[in-house]
Amino acid sequence: MNHVLTADQFNKSDLDRIMQRSAEMEHILQQGGSKMCDGKILGALFYEPSTRTRLSFETAMLRLGGNVISESDVTFSSQSKGEVIEDTIRIVGGYADVIAIRTKNKGEAKVAAHYSPVPVLNGGDGSGEHPTQSLLDLYTIVKHHKIGQEPLKVAFVGDLKYGRTVHSLAKVLRQFEGVSLQFVAPETIQMPAEYLSPADSIHYELSDEVLTNADVIYDTRMQKERFEDIEQYNQVKNAFIFTPEMVSTMKPDATLMHPLPRVNEIMQRVDHLPQARYFEQALNGVPVRMALIAEALEI
Amino acid sequence: MNHVLTADQFNKSDLDRIMQRSAEMEHILQQGGSKMCDGKILGALFYEPSTRTRLSFETAMLRLGGNVISESDVTFSSQSKGEVIEDTIRIVGGYADVIAIRTKNKGEAKVAAHYSPVPVLNGGDGSGEHPTQSLLDLYTIVKHHKIGQEPLKVAFVGDLKYGRTVHSLAKVLRQFEGVSLQFVAPETIQMPAEYLSPADSIHYELSDEVLTNADVIYDTRMQKERFEDIEQYNQVKNAFIFTPEMVSTMKPDATLMHPLPRVNEIMQRVDHLPQARYFEQALNGVPVRMALIAEALEI
Amino acid sequence: MNHVLTADQFNKSDLDRIMQRSAEMEHILQQGGSKMCDGKILGALFYEPSTRTRLSFETAMLRLGGNVISESDVTFSSQSKGEVIEDTIRIVGGYADVIAIRTKNKGEAKVAAHYSPVPVLNGGDGSGEHPTQSLLDLYTIVKHHKIGQEPLKVAFVGDLKYGRTVHSLAKVLRQFEGVSLQFVAPETIQMPAEYLSPADSIHYELSDEVLTNADVIYDTRMQKERFEDIEQYNQVKNAFIFTPEMVSTMKPDATLMHPLPRVNEIMQRVDHLPQARYFEQALNGVPVRMALIAEALEI
Repeated sequence: MNHVLTADQFNKSDLDRIMQRSAEMEHILQQGGSKMCDGKILGALFYEPSTRTRLSFETAMLRLGGNVISESDVTFSSQSKGEVIEDTIRIVGGYADVIAIRTKNKGEAKVAAHYSPVPVLNGGDGSGEHPTQSLLDLYTIVKHHKIGQEPLKVAFVGDLKYGRTVHSLAKVLRQFEGVSLQFVAPETIQMPAEYLSPADSIHYELSDEVLTNADVIYDTRMQKERFEDIEQYNQVKNAFIFTPEMVSTMKPDATLMHPLPRVNEIMQRVDHLPQARYFEQALNGVPVRMALIAEALEI
Repeated sequence: MNHVLTADQFNKSDLDRIMQRSAEMEHILQQGGSKMCDGKILGALFYEPSTRTRLSFETAMLRLGGNVISESDVTFSSQSKGEVIEDTIRIVGGYADVIAIRTKNKGEAKVAAHYSPVPVLNGGDGSGEHPTQSLLDLYTIVKHHKIGQEPLKVAFVGDLKYGRTVHSLAKVLRQFEGVSLQFVAPETIQMPAEYLSPADSIHYELSDEVLTNADVIYDTRMQKERFEDIEQYNQVKNAFIFTPEMVSTMKPDATLMHPLPRVNEIMQRVDHLPQARYFEQALNGVPVRMALIAEALEI
Repeated sequence: MNHVLTADQFNKSDLDRIMQRSAEMEHILQQGGSKMCDGKILGALFYEPSTRTRLSFETAMLRLGGNVISESDVTFSSQSKGEVIEDTIRIVGGYADVIAIRTKNKGEAKVAAHYSPVPVLNGGDGSGEHPTQSLLDLYTIVKHHKIGQEPLKVAFVGDLKYGRTVHSLAKVLRQFEGVSLQFVAPETIQMPAEYLSPADSIHYELSDEVLTNADVIYDTRMQKERFEDIEQYNQVKNAFIFTPEMVSTMKPDATLMHPLPRVNEIMQRVDHLPQARYFEQALNGVPVRMALIAEALEI
């Protein structure tokens, strides 16, 4: 079955195919949508609330002409009666044709897929993976940069230890030739060794050199809820704040990305600069998820 | 863009057009609905839960053949991660074709509209405005009374200080000739001076004279949650309770309205009297919101 | 109006008709659904959250080509402002064409039906009734056993005092000839006298004899939330736990059912045995609810 569980599952040709399909879906969106999923149902099972991700999946299915059944906090309902995720997924997988799931704990999306009678799209499993986010991140880069054809410098900034989107996107980008990765974070929240490659460069501060040479900067929120030690959070939470002055020194055609929500990492006054592409990035979730739903349903 | 943010934005000709369109929509409803919004998506963003208003907006969109993405308590999701309304609206406005929003604080609907890429329909912004309610209130009056053509006595009763629907409807009614307004409330929750006009009459008690002469009585709930002083609430909460005996003394063709929910202001035994039109009033929310969605989408 | 409020309302010929219609709906599901409810709206009003029941009703309506408006915790919205169920139902009944409702207290579904302008389907009223569950339970039995034509031994196991699904299904089964009922539970949570018939047999332990002779075993969860005395709950909660070894001694064509969610009453290792039909049972909720929606709408 065409589950989407981890960014690791895609080889280069998968990525190329999904990018191509996403571009087609963006074209369909511009034409006002499609009816190719008429009669199909997406089950959106969110064990942790997430307005953005859930609504993005739902929008994708509706724009394809399908329908949606949705539970935005499963914990308050079946789970409160003590039901295990295996049972819930077997039943909702009997109602729906494809499932988008967000879970609290790492690995639960994989468990869900094991028991599901229909394809499962992992919408984030705790501190684990968020593969559809990685694909929309990649799509945003593909739209603005000649990745794989020209050298591309990508700098990751912020919480690189707990940020699952960083871990997954880094893996995806390594499949393209000519991509060099830079990791910018205080030591306590640097990129874990398991995700590093010898060619990477590590920085503890956001230097002018990184800022002015990057083609893509991928900034992230310090996720308070992932820190076990609140003191550690307080020490790093304001480590990097993007000001308009800083972003103006980036290359004119560079891309500043952020998975959102942001708290204060990027000032609102940055939003109108040409490098600021984090809202476009969020909207790219729709065509990319349309592509993944269509692949899951083999349509 | 065709935002609906405040009752102030409509001049007399706007009101006439919307009333006309709402009547057409009521006809469409009787025919079983329409497909005129096929492929369109309403984003319902409710920062405060409100079953009635949200389901009414959603019903309106579905009866027009469109679809809905919905978040019934935004505070529990994106907002809990610290996201500002500006960012949420930019993203959901990229998913949906039109947004209905309810916010906790006065002025937030206007902020949302400023950042939204699509039309915003204000479904209530705290103690601020609730313009779609005013329009459905007006539609209810238009259906049963020759407003603008014959003199019309409208009495507002109950919490006139905190009741945003009262403030907005009063403004709307002033655009019609021959309408005289009476405000009936204890002094502590009387109509604020800014909404008064010299021709209005103020009453501290609900006299037989007001009751028997009114063409329309618009009763409101004492909104416990808006009072800062619980003592003040307790003093006034039972000030006016409509009994069947009282309502029977109203003119036979008069209209008793209430924005609902009611607590105990109108006894259930009143419901079957011909003057009781508050349930019809609630249902008028569907054709009126269909009209507003169609205008917003320029359909 | 075609309300579905209690299992008592159906005579034998009603049950036969609904089983027949459910089988037709299962066939429609296999064909990819229908458009017979195009333009119709189901209002799902859940005063208590229930992922499974709500999503099953919603799926049923969507597979019929209709739409859904949904409130998964009414208590947090209108009710928190003090609105009575009568008012909510009158209004939502004006938006929707049919209502599925779950309430906290026994008897509330009947109250809702009294005030509703459209048919009401009771999705569980506290410790009262859950008639659509009984019908899907019956449908599961009908699919695998020649009920009414051959003798059928049905054993109910677990919480027979508080389990509303047990009370309702027992009533339904009594309408078929040749059905004998056995009730297996500790004395404190045995079947209440009002639901018993002289021919029934009562057991305080799950004997090998019951296990090996039953055609159908209907196991239930000890519903912690229904016990007034937590001590009593702790005493009985592990009284019966179905192991693979136990289930293997059942007849090869016997059916083990459970309304789900289960906590630990049936081990996961039982799931793959041929007698385990509780997941199929849950999925039968869709065709049965499609049949009930179609009957309610007279389609």
